[in-house]
Amino acid sequence: MQVLKFGGTSVGSIDRIQNVAAIIDEISQTEKQLAVVVSAMAGETDRLVALYRSLGVSIETREYDLLVASGEQASVALLSAALRKRGKKSTPLLGFQAGFVTDQKHSKAKIQNIETQHIQNLWADGSIPIIAGFQGVDAAGEITTLGRGGSDTSAVALAAALGADVCDIYTDVSGVYTADPRICPEARRIPILSFEECMELASLGAKVLHPRCVELGAKYRIPIRVINTFNRGECTVIKQMDSEDKGLESPVVTALSHDHNMILVTVHKAKNAVQDYARLFGPLSDKGVIIDIISNSAPDAQGFFDLSFSCPKEDIVNVETLLKKFGQEYTVRSGLSKVALVGTGMRTHSGVAARVFRILAEQSIPVFCTSSSEISLTCVVPSELVEKTIQSLHKGFELGNP
Amino acid sequence: MQVLKFGGTSVGSIDRIQNVAAIIDEISQTEKQLAVVVSAMAGETDRLVALYRSLGVSIETREYDLLVASGEQASVALLSAALRKRGKKSTPLLGFQAGFVTDQKHSKAKIQNIETQHIQNLWADGSIPIIAGFQGVDAAGEITTLGRGGSDTSAVALAAALGADVCDIYTDVSGVYTADPRICPEARRIPILSFEECMELASLGAKVLHPRCVELGAKYRIPIRVINTFNRGECTVIKQMDSEDKGLESPVVTALSHDHNMILVTVHKAKNAVQDYARLFGPLSDKGVIIDIISNSAPDAQGFFDLSFSCPKEDIVNVETLLKKFGQEYTVRSGLSKVALVGTGMRTHSGVAARVFRILAEQSIPVFCTSSSEISLTCVVPSELVEKTIQSLHKGFELGNP
Repeated sequence: MQVLKFGGTSVGSIDRIQNVAAIIDEISQTEKQLAVVVSAMAGETDRLVALYRSLGVSIETREYDLLVASGEQASVALLSAALRKRGKKSTPLLGFQAGFVTDQKHSKAKIQNIETQHIQNLWADGSIPIIAGFQGVDAAGEITTLGRGGSDTSAVALAAALGADVCDIYTDVSGVYTADPRICPEARRIPILSFEECMELASLGAKVLHPRCVELGAKYRIPIRVINTFNRGECTVIKQMDSEDKGLESPVVTALSHDHNMILVTVHKAKNAVQDYARLFGPLSDKGVIIDIISNSAPDAQGFFDLSFSCPKEDIVNVETLLKKFGQEYTVRSGLSKVALVGTGMRTHSGVAARVFRILAEQSIPVFCTSSSEISLTCVVPSELVEKTIQSLHKGFELGNP
Repeated sequence: MQVLKFGGTSVGSIDRIQNVAAIIDEISQTEKQLAVVVSAMAGETDRLVALYRSLGVSIETREYDLLVASGEQASVALLSAALRKRGKKSTPLLGFQAGFVTDQKHSKAKIQNIETQHIQNLWADGSIPIIAGFQGVDAAGEITTLGRGGSDTSAVALAAALGADVCDIYTDVSGVYTADPRICPEARRIPILSFEECMELASLGAKVLHPRCVELGAKYRIPIRVINTFNRGECTVIKQMDSEDKGLESPVVTALSHDHNMILVTVHKAKNAVQDYARLFGPLSDKGVIIDIISNSAPDAQGFFDLSFSCPKEDIVNVETLLKKFGQEYTVRSGLSKVALVGTGMRTHSGVAARVFRILAEQSIPVFCTSSSEISLTCVVPSELVEKTIQSLHKGFELGNP
């Protein structure tokens, strides 16, 4: 039993839809229980969202969801028609027809339950369900959408609900790479990645899969394969590492990710760590500002310390408004980017930070802030040095060699 | 109680959708029971149909209906959002949510029933229902669409089901004219038109309303107003003529219509009228060819006669294939157009035909075939003389004078 998901670029034109129909036709020769989840045609959701935004209304409405859900409605209809043309029996299903029940949070609904009876009936009838991703229906019968990473999340959630063996995410890249190949020509596809590494990479800026869908895969232990629709020979398998994989020595660093869109705020001479954090971060969280890296200096002789945190660039107005109320001297630095090293091997290997700083020092790359988790190390560097940083670290940690 | 319907050009851009929201807002100040039916944004249905057709699949499928129904889904969502922005409470409804139940004929479904309870509930709740025209749901829960004239038909059918006082069709022209103003600059808007005149005009080529929707208005006696969205001062009211209107002397001819797209077929020396008609028109009807005008000459001394009929130009291949099987000598003329005179006054006035032929003879316009109903007279003329024909008849019957 298999769930296939095709992204927007994979169904971006009639030719591409016909190509996807051929892939489904081929797989269905050997796999009888197949469910297909489809995104809107590339550019369509953006077009609809732009129309909506020009009205100047909040997106957290049933109107927004009804509008953007029409994008997937068109693509499932076209894909099912392309399969019909090939003589293949399939049934296009909107989110609500496929049994996706969500909460009522318009534009960012969460899947509560998937009633798979309809899909099971279609299988019994020899028909392939072609399901609109990204959408569902709430208890009141209103159409909802899932927000960012929605279609991938639909696919993995469906695989979990059906108890599928695997969820294949067809997209326009051949998997997850050791670094962005546009920045780092030596970057190499990673054949197998653990859920936790993938989640770290996604959270730290790699764009292949949304953390939400990886989290779901990890929770229900559904292996996710990232496959290039236009070159199906290569892929990355994201899975729970089991005994077989544990036999291998994990590399210290598996991959690098980066994210351009950030500012670094430093509050000078804060005094009472816990209280100050609460006074500052509480209101920021109320405004929906996502605080990423937090770091503080050790207190000086008078007990004062500097507190730094990073957040997305678009939140700068909210942040400055609150900092002014906070009443403490502060600095806001923009033009900065994150570069992160991720790898489960970092758990058992010491000296990663030392190696990173040595490599960066050799290249005269200044680091404004660092942060680490059990399996990642993040450095904040000037945006104009991101490429150089990634190239140096990729080479320094020999990520180009399998 | 009022049903408003806005066509594709009326909601063709965000600015226009905001304009429509302003109109609804204004009308809702005095009219509390208001239902709004909306078409897809101009060009959107054509875009979706072109995508579908490029797959080379029949349109009589659930995939086609699901696809094209997404056009109205987008426009009701946007219009409802524009009303929200104005602080006006409304609810976007897809065809199935609004209670439109149809038969199962995909791409040309007929409305069987409208369950208006949801709309009544919204009124009780102070919300204006914004309804996707052109679509419904069949007994199996599949989304269907109504085919040509669909959104107008949705609106008039809803007005009938609700028992509304009037159905207002907002479009991009100021009503029905005595002739096409692009061809005949003297053409005048007709303030009041009977259902039967409007139906004749629509059947004979005038594009303002589809005959299907006018027929429904006539059946349920729902007055239809054709209003210009961009200039609401003027309109045409289409209604059952009652005692008040009967006081007026009906003009002999109310309006002219024309249709460019036809061929005229003449079968020579047919012998047995009824049998030959059956042998020829049966198979043509099976092929879906719509025969329009039929006329035959009186039989000659041997009992032979010539049989002529007109049909749409695109059917020429089907027609010629069948004529070859029919085995009788035939002529096919293309480059012909219909010009029709319509008016309830023709019932009681003789001499219309004589006047028509006198006018056309003065202009040396040849007539290849004629046909008449109780309230219309149709002439087939060379396409290059259509403008001249219309201008001459418009002048000859003084249609420019109220």
